[in-house]
Amino acid sequence: MRKIKLINNISSLYKMQYTIDDTSVYMKRDDTLDFAFGGNKVRLFEYIAAVINEKKVRRIVTYGSIYSNYVRVAAAVCAKLGVECDIIILEKNTSKDVIGGNASLLSFYEVNIIKCPLENAYDFIDNYQKELKDKGINFLWIPGGGHMPEAAWGYLEATNEILEQADKLNIKFDACFLPCGTGTTQAGIICGFENSNIDVYGVTIARDEKRCKKVIGELITKMQQLEPTISVPEDSINVLDNGNIKYGDINEGIKELMKEVATTDGIFLDPIYNAKAFWRMKTYLKENPRYKNVLYINTGGSPNVFMRGCNFEG
Amino acid sequence: MRKIKLINNISSLYKMQYTIDDTSVYMKRDDTLDFAFGGNKVRLFEYIAAVINEKKVRRIVTYGSIYSNYVRVAAAVCAKLGVECDIIILEKNTSKDVIGGNASLLSFYEVNIIKCPLENAYDFIDNYQKELKDKGINFLWIPGGGHMPEAAWGYLEATNEILEQADKLNIKFDACFLPCGTGTTQAGIICGFENSNIDVYGVTIARDEKRCKKVIGELITKMQQLEPTISVPEDSINVLDNGNIKYGDINEGIKELMKEVATTDGIFLDPIYNAKAFWRMKTYLKENPRYKNVLYINTGGSPNVFMRGCNFEG
Repeated sequence: MRKIKLINNISSLYKMQYTIDDTSVYMKRDDTLDFAFGGNKVRLFEYIAAVINEKKVRRIVTYGSIYSNYVRVAAAVCAKLGVECDIIILEKNTSKDVIGGNASLLSFYEVNIIKCPLENAYDFIDNYQKELKDKGINFLWIPGGGHMPEAAWGYLEATNEILEQADKLNIKFDACFLPCGTGTTQAGIICGFENSNIDVYGVTIARDEKRCKKVIGELITKMQQLEPTISVPEDSINVLDNGNIKYGDINEGIKELMKEVATTDGIFLDPIYNAKAFWRMKTYLKENPRYKNVLYINTGGSPNVFMRGCNFEG
Repeated sequence: MRKIKLINNISSLYKMQYTIDDTSVYMKRDDTLDFAFGGNKVRLFEYIAAVINEKKVRRIVTYGSIYSNYVRVAAAVCAKLGVECDIIILEKNTSKDVIGGNASLLSFYEVNIIKCPLENAYDFIDNYQKELKDKGINFLWIPGGGHMPEAAWGYLEATNEILEQADKLNIKFDACFLPCGTGTTQAGIICGFENSNIDVYGVTIARDEKRCKKVIGELITKMQQLEPTISVPEDSINVLDNGNIKYGDINEGIKELMKEVATTDGIFLDPIYNAKAFWRMKTYLKENPRYKNVLYINTGGSPNVFMRGCNFEG
C-alpha cells in the first residue's frame, strides 16, 4: 500500500505511573505524532494522501466534527499537497459557538468550511456533492473520519511499531483499548494484532456499540479485498458502550480522571475521545480484573483541552 | 549530574520543506516531548526535579509568565513529585484576561497562583519569600525559567542526541538558532556544541541582547563550577535582537510565517517564542547568506496557539 510520509518521530510506548488495581497500563502516545498536533488521523492520512495523489484530484470534499483530529489533519494535509479542501462541519444543537482548540487551528489554512445542520446531514452532504458535479467540478469524496480501507493501513503499520517496542520492554500485552469513532483505527489495529493474542476493545464515542461493530466489520471486508491474506475471526471485534454519554459530553468521574492522569503522568487526555475511553477502560478492568498488561492507544485530540463553548466545560 | 526521567520519546530532527533561499533548515521538534505538552523546560526540569528531591523540600516557590512552558511544566512536575507549588505570575499591563492555552492547563493542578504587579516584581518576590520564612515554612526558591546551572544539563544532554541524529542523516550543521528567554537552554546548547563548529544564536524574546548575553555568560560560569572540564570561549555567546517586538507581541510578518510553516510542514509555531525566533532567523539568514545547513530548535510553547486575550490575536 502506498503512503506519503507525514510523521518523523516514533511515539513512545511506556508504562504509566497510573495503574488500575493490579493491571499495568502502557500508553502508546500517538497524541505526540509530530504532524499538525498529532493523533491517530495522521497515520490514516499518510495513506489517504497517497490515494489523493494517485487520483490526481485538486480538491477533496469531506465532513466531520469541529472537535475531531480528522478535520484538523485533513486541512493540514491538503495545504501540504496544494489541494483544495471542503469540510462540511456538523453543527451542534447549541446556542454557544465553539471557539479555541481545533477551531483556532483551522484558521491557519484556507479551507472551505460548510456548516451543515445535524438533522438532515446525509441529504445535505449528497446535495453538496451533486451541486459540485453539476458545475463540472472534479473532486474526491472522503468519508468522515477517513473511513477508507486504505487509511486503516496506518494502524496495521502502527501495530508492528508497537510490537517492536513491546519486545524491547520485554512485555506481552493481554488487551488493547482505544476510542472508537468511525472505527477505521480499530479495524487497522485488529488486523495488525491478528496473531498476537491481544484482545482489542474500542470504546464508543459517538455511535452505539452495534453500529460501531458493523462498520468495523464492513471495513475489514474491504481491507481483505485489497489484501486477501488478511484473515480476522468475527469475534475479534469488541466494542464497549461508554454508558450513554453523548458525543462531546463528559461526566464528573471523567473530569477527575483527567486531573489524576495529568498528575501521575503529565498527560492531558482530551475530553472528547481519550479521557472517555480511558475512563471506560478503567471501569471495565475493575469489573473484569483478568488482564495483567494492557495497552491504551492515546489517539490524540489534545487541542480539545483548549476548547471553549463546548459541553465538557460545564 | 543526577536527573529524574520525565521524557519517554526522542523528538525528531528533520529537514523541513520550508527553506530560506539556499539554506536548508532542520528542526529539532522539542515541542513534541511527551510530558505536559513538551517544550524545552521539560528537559531542564529532569535536572531541577533531581535537585528538589536532593534538597528534600516539600514546597517550591518560583515565578514566570502565564505564556511560558516553564510554569506549566513546573506545575506538572510538582504534582508528580507530590511537592507543593507556589507560582508568582507577573501580571501584564492589560485590561484583558488571558484565558485558554497554558491558563487552562494550570487548572488541572493544585498550584498556588500568586499575581504580582509588573512594576515592583523584585520587591514583591522578596517579600513573599520573607513572609514564608517568617512563618517557618521550608521551601526551595527556583529562579524564573529554571535558570539554574543544573537545569542547563538538560540541553547539554540534548546536544548529544542532536549530534547522533545529524550523523544518521549524514549532515553537518553550520549554525543553530533558538529563542532566548532566560538563557538557560542556550547556555546548555553552547556548552554541548563546544567542539562542533556550530555557531549558536539565541533570539531575544523578553530581555534585550546585552542582558541575555550577560546572564548566559554568568550561567556558564556556574556550570563550570559544577563541571570544570567545560570550557567555552567568550565569543560563542551570540544573541540576535528580535527588532524591538515586546514580549507577547507579534507582527504581520510573523503571523504570515506561522501560516506558511503550518502549510509546508504541518507545524504550528507558538506565537510568543518560536514564531518570533524562527522569523528573526529568516531575516538574519537573508541578510547573511553564509550557512548551508541550519538547525532550529523548536522549544515548544504550542499551548500558546490557543491563547485568548493576549496581544498576538490583535
